[in-house]
Amino acid sequence: MADRLDISQRKKDHLALCAGDNVGFRDKTSLLEQVELVHDALPEMHLDDVDPSVELLGKRLRAPVVIAAMTGGTDEAAIINQDLARAADQLGLGFGLGSQRAMFVRPHTAHTFQVREHAPNVLLLGNLGIVQARAMSTAEIATLCRDTGADALCIHLNPAMEIVQPGGDRDFSRGLDTLRRLVEELHIPIVVKETGCGLSRGVAERVRSVGVEHLDVSGSGGTSWVAVEAHRAVDPDERALADELWDWGIPTAASVLQVQGLGFRGIVATGGLRTGSDVARAVALGATAGGLAAPVLKAHRAGGYDGVVAFLRRVVLTVRSIMLLTGSRTVADLQRAPRVLGPTLARWVPEPRR
Amino acid sequence: MADRLDISQRKKDHLALCAGDNVGFRDKTSLLEQVELVHDALPEMHLDDVDPSVELLGKRLRAPVVIAAMTGGTDEAAIINQDLARAADQLGLGFGLGSQRAMFVRPHTAHTFQVREHAPNVLLLGNLGIVQARAMSTAEIATLCRDTGADALCIHLNPAMEIVQPGGDRDFSRGLDTLRRLVEELHIPIVVKETGCGLSRGVAERVRSVGVEHLDVSGSGGTSWVAVEAHRAVDPDERALADELWDWGIPTAASVLQVQGLGFRGIVATGGLRTGSDVARAVALGATAGGLAAPVLKAHRAGGYDGVVAFLRRVVLTVRSIMLLTGSRTVADLQRAPRVLGPTLARWVPEPRR
Amino acid sequence: MADRLDISQRKKDHLALCAGDNVGFRDKTSLLEQVELVHDALPEMHLDDVDPSVELLGKRLRAPVVIAAMTGGTDEAAIINQDLARAADQLGLGFGLGSQRAMFVRPHTAHTFQVREHAPNVLLLGNLGIVQARAMSTAEIATLCRDTGADALCIHLNPAMEIVQPGGDRDFSRGLDTLRRLVEELHIPIVVKETGCGLSRGVAERVRSVGVEHLDVSGSGGTSWVAVEAHRAVDPDERALADELWDWGIPTAASVLQVQGLGFRGIVATGGLRTGSDVARAVALGATAGGLAAPVLKAHRAGGYDGVVAFLRRVVLTVRSIMLLTGSRTVADLQRAPRVLGPTLARWVPEPRR
Amino acid sequence: MADRLDISQRKKDHLALCAGDNVGFRDKTSLLEQVELVHDALPEMHLDDVDPSVELLGKRLRAPVVIAAMTGGTDEAAIINQDLARAADQLGLGFGLGSQRAMFVRPHTAHTFQVREHAPNVLLLGNLGIVQARAMSTAEIATLCRDTGADALCIHLNPAMEIVQPGGDRDFSRGLDTLRRLVEELHIPIVVKETGCGLSRGVAERVRSVGVEHLDVSGSGGTSWVAVEAHRAVDPDERALADELWDWGIPTAASVLQVQGLGFRGIVATGGLRTGSDVARAVALGATAGGLAAPVLKAHRAGGYDGVVAFLRRVVLTVRSIMLLTGSRTVADLQRAPRVLGPTLARWVPEPRR
Ligand SMILES: Cc1cc2nc3c(=O)[nH]c(=O)nc-3n(C[C@H](O)[C@H](O)[C@H](O)COP(=O)(O)O)c2cc1C
Ligand SMILES: Cc1cc2nc3c(=O)[nH]c(=O)nc-3n(C[C@H](O)[C@H](O)[C@H](O)COP(=O)(O)O)c2cc1C
Ligand SMILES: Cc1cc2nc3c(=O)[nH]c(=O)nc-3n(C[C@H](O)[C@H](O)[C@H](O)COP(=O)(O)O)c2cc1C
Ligand SMILES: Cc1cc2nc3c(=O)[nH]c(=O)nc-3n(C[C@H](O)[C@H](O)[C@H](O)COP(=O)(O)O)c2cc1C
Repeated sequence: MADRLDISQRKKDHLALCAGDNVGFRDKTSLLEQVELVHDALPEMHLDDVDPSVELLGKRLRAPVVIAAMTGGTDEAAIINQDLARAADQLGLGFGLGSQRAMFVRPHTAHTFQVREHAPNVLLLGNLGIVQARAMSTAEIATLCRDTGADALCIHLNPAMEIVQPGGDRDFSRGLDTLRRLVEELHIPIVVKETGCGLSRGVAERVRSVGVEHLDVSGSGGTSWVAVEAHRAVDPDERALADELWDWGIPTAASVLQVQGLGFRGIVATGGLRTGSDVARAVALGATAGGLAAPVLKAHRAGGYDGVVAFLRRVVLTVRSIMLLTGSRTVADLQRAPRVLGPTLARWVPEPRR
Repeated sequence: MADRLDISQRKKDHLALCAGDNVGFRDKTSLLEQVELVHDALPEMHLDDVDPSVELLGKRLRAPVVIAAMTGGTDEAAIINQDLARAADQLGLGFGLGSQRAMFVRPHTAHTFQVREHAPNVLLLGNLGIVQARAMSTAEIATLCRDTGADALCIHLNPAMEIVQPGGDRDFSRGLDTLRRLVEELHIPIVVKETGCGLSRGVAERVRSVGVEHLDVSGSGGTSWVAVEAHRAVDPDERALADELWDWGIPTAASVLQVQGLGFRGIVATGGLRTGSDVARAVALGATAGGLAAPVLKAHRAGGYDGVVAFLRRVVLTVRSIMLLTGSRTVADLQRAPRVLGPTLARWVPEPRR
Repeated sequence: MADRLDISQRKKDHLALCAGDNVGFRDKTSLLEQVELVHDALPEMHLDDVDPSVELLGKRLRAPVVIAAMTGGTDEAAIINQDLARAADQLGLGFGLGSQRAMFVRPHTAHTFQVREHAPNVLLLGNLGIVQARAMSTAEIATLCRDTGADALCIHLNPAMEIVQPGGDRDFSRGLDTLRRLVEELHIPIVVKETGCGLSRGVAERVRSVGVEHLDVSGSGGTSWVAVEAHRAVDPDERALADELWDWGIPTAASVLQVQGLGFRGIVATGGLRTGSDVARAVALGATAGGLAAPVLKAHRAGGYDGVVAFLRRVVLTVRSIMLLTGSRTVADLQRAPRVLGPTLARWVPEPRR
Repeated sequence: MADRLDISQRKKDHLALCAGDNVGFRDKTSLLEQVELVHDALPEMHLDDVDPSVELLGKRLRAPVVIAAMTGGTDEAAIINQDLARAADQLGLGFGLGSQRAMFVRPHTAHTFQVREHAPNVLLLGNLGIVQARAMSTAEIATLCRDTGADALCIHLNPAMEIVQPGGDRDFSRGLDTLRRLVEELHIPIVVKETGCGLSRGVAERVRSVGVEHLDVSGSGGTSWVAVEAHRAVDPDERALADELWDWGIPTAASVLQVQGLGFRGIVATGGLRTGSDVARAVALGATAGGLAAPVLKAHRAGGYDGVVAFLRRVVLTVRSIMLLTGSRTVADLQRAPRVLGPTLARWVPEPRR
């Protein structure tokens, strides 16, 4: 009971904190601002010829934009999930559910995750922490996926958040085994996802080696979950640790560079993307799509469903415009478009052969 | 009628906005400040030996300076064009007319572009948008050129401006065909010109391949036409897009570097040049001449014809002085003079063989 | 007598000044902030699997942290030494005594250095300036070591401090001979240590060539001893010299890079480390352990023995956390962990073969 | 008569302006702050073993410091020259007279340059502009040198200053011939000297090719002579030109790097050196000695002869201290000492073979 209250309260805290202004990184950005796209003055096409659609996880998005995993488990979450899923469906984007752990431990909250009827065609991403996934049977996980009608399951890795969180997990063993099992046994694809600290080349290589074909780098520069926990910490030692790790993580643009060339079929770049320019820059670094969490939440707080649609429409309009202005007819063209990297970001390009 | 009023009003808006201080780039400069020229303490010549003249488009300018395309079509524009053309003629510089579309669609405004009698010897550049040129026959275009006595025709590429402009063009197809046709059929040379977003290496290669031999890079760092349209936008979505693309474009110095080594006969560097030092730096990067728009307009607003002559005289005096101080007897010497590039600009130097 | 008073007063001045805020470097940092560790989202271990222990000078520390040499010789110093030694013993860290010159010239102060009974298992480092060591016989030095039960002897090099100090030493000859003699004749290992100006590759090569196997780089970025003397200077010329040399020295991170690859068995990185992140970054550059002086003194001033234990516990907790988050099970793993160096620090990496 | 008054007034203006704070470069430094000397913690010598003496132009200076050319021709100048020459003699440094043109055109002012009786042993440098030297016979120049007892003659190159100066010279032809003639015919060595804009590699190569063996780079970052003339300008065009060229020139540290490896016997680094650290850094870049002008003038204004001696004593003390702290027994050692260059300065290192 205390536990249930606790989880429910935590979710509320998270939503309130993440919609505010004090959970950003302090001295670290996504480094997307160090990606200079190169203007093409002679695009040789009509703006309507630009095709920003992209295939991701077996579905075609109308634009390379995903609403990243946020919530579930409470009444407020139910409304948010419905509105965001509907908006994504309406615009042809992807939508990610928040961690479905709540749904598993408290089955009566399942409805807060069930958005399929409101969003029949949306690319719907389920979500589970790797520590929870390790403890569950594949059948149990499959049930969670079937009950929501998810097209793929994001397994989130978030060790930094866990270790600064009071009562967070401390055991991160057998993660790779868990991923291998799910790749082999689950009926839908797995997306390995961070939650704001990014994925390194080493991690990407390891998860690729067990068959994972999709990533969401969720790098640093946007919402810092360590910062969120710093606000919630009561114990001064925990607060001090969270304070020191506040800026921990790989900047999103750096993380996208790190995971290139390893044979992934889809790479979502989440973490600190705020505009269509950010999405376009992430794609030009090699991402399949850009993901946004906190800014979508803020748009919902400010304007509900309509606010979210209006915000995302602008994001897509900008992506389409930049595609034209870089002479990119397709998302694949944008991925190959010339770009100039700033000096800090350039240091993150992996060596040719290491 | 509504249309005519509209165009005429737009022209007035443009002049007023561009003479003001709120249409510059926000976080982007021309990068000319990252070109360090190298002092020659022993120039071995008289200041009078310095020959800042340069051949451009078949005429010899007394200094490598061009007044870039600005206006036409209104009474105010007529006065400005006359004064600027006279000043350019007086000082032996180049002068560019604003877009002659107005002259085509409203023939009674032709006189506002006809400056030849006031500037019999000036290098006179006609101007037409590529979208308009595509829609017109070569004969129609030839008439516009003959009626103004232009020595060459600038075809401006401005997709960024078009797509943020209410009612702007969205179709940029068949631009290269249009250029090929004009190169082959028109009696005067074509200059491919941007309007503040710069020309990339890719665009330069493509237009070179259809026979274009002259460019005006018109890069970023000076007047931002997207910014101009941001001020004029009424619709919040359009305003938001313009806001986000405000700084879009290739910095002028970067653009000059990008188009080197492709066999062009003349390269004008416009965009953010404000002084004779800027002109000299652009030439040291390989430009044939520097172009200035907004600062000339401001000088005209402040001091009319005399103000323009005084301003340009200072620009030329500085160019001449810097030629001496870099030991450059000729403009060709200045183009070969040693220079040290700053780190941001250096990243724009094209790879030897790509 | 005047001399004794003087030394005693200097020690008190030093403690008071170093616990304050005006003896830091002005425009120089340790450059540890230019070491970006790379997040490992999939650490594949329990936090308890992380083993932050490390062998240094024949003893195993429970974490790669050393309290660097500070004091001795006065009553205040006696209390500090006891408390710090006890704290280090309690937490399984290393502890360094301040210069034992006082103990030699004023034997009745010996007790202020004798902490062994309070810290039976601690890695205890003795301390002597190279100029004093040169003047003493090996037997005399051995006695100092035996009387304190030191496990190793730090020989500190501090020419910058000496030459700005009124009455400081000016003769730095025969230092290498002295080190060779002590390496050969003393019963415990020698650690060559700076006091805030760092060790260069050249110095490291030279001391390695006479058999020294351990270093404490004590680089710039934390306490500036020249600054301390600037505050104490009376003569305006001496004050001016100290002012000008205030920032003299090799940043700590740079110094750790400089001494890599020369075959040392242990490298302590002291100088400007303030947190567990700093310790982790120093280790990732190749250090065996990080050393802290002034921040431990401040923690003692603020909270006595308990304050020191609390402070160091946090440092260790952060190190352990970062080890997990970089996927480092052992300190050796952390030393090999990927890292991205900032541009200023990168310039200090020694050339492959020089 | 007007002319004489004018020259005399100019000299006074210059002294007053240069002793003030408004004739420095605006956005340009000497780049000496980008030279990081590397601390040697084990110098293996006594401070007294450090020998900061250096041979320059046939005389041995007690330290690598020269008072750079400043004045002559007025009563005030006479006092300054005497005091500075005496101070240099007293401390064993070099001293440079201001331009001796005044002495030639107004022979009764000769006494203001004649400091030999007050400074019997000083390294005394005569001074003449290259334009004046071109117009004079070698015999006339030899007389100027003999009448002052100069050990060498600085021929200053200052085209930037001349062209911004009302009535300044505009003819810089036959400079190289003039230098060749003087090298061949004059009884004392020639030093080619700038006055604040620096010497490029190209200029150094050319003057070396006619036999010049000594340079004073006098680079940018200290006194800007263009700035001085900007203050004196009356005509707005001249003022505007001076304003634009205010920061023109090669930073001193860059200039020292540019002239390395061409076989010069002596290189003085003047321009923006303000302390002994600056002198040491210049030497570590390859200079034989550092030169100071404006700061010596300021010290004289503030404290007369004694003020100058005190100031220079501190400069020398710092040089000596830094020599010890870089393990440099001799100036030649300091020239070879390790150093780390900042990124802006590094771009000025000449390519190995060009
Ligand atoms: C309120 C909120 C809740 C989140 N909950 C989850 C979650 O349950 N599972 C997950 O994988 N990521 C979660 N995230 C992380 C986001 O998916 C995303 O990776 C991160 O916030 C960075 O993106 P941003 O900068 O656009 O917010 C959450 C983010 C927010 C703001
Ligand atoms: C008021 C104004 C009107 C302009 N009109 C045109 C035009 O009709 N055609 C064109 O090619 N460029 C036009 N331009 C762009 C300029 O030619 C130039 O490329 C751009 O302003 C960058 O130069 P600047 O920074 O010196 O202003 C115009 C610029 C201004 C300021
Ligand atoms: C109060 C104080 C006294 C010190 N005394 C000594 C000493 O006797 N011997 C020594 O080798 N270093 C001494 N040091 C230098 C430290 O060991 C350390 O190298 C230096 O302070 C840089 O570390 P920090 O930035 O953490 O203070 C002293 C430092 C402080 C703050
Ligand atoms: C007041 C004053 C007068 C100068 N006069 C001369 C001169 O006659 N001849 C010359 O070669 N340089 C002259 N200089 C230039 C200096 O020798 C030196 O090159 C320049 O000032 C840069 O050094 P600083 O930054 O230390 O002042 C003069 C400088 C000053 C401040």
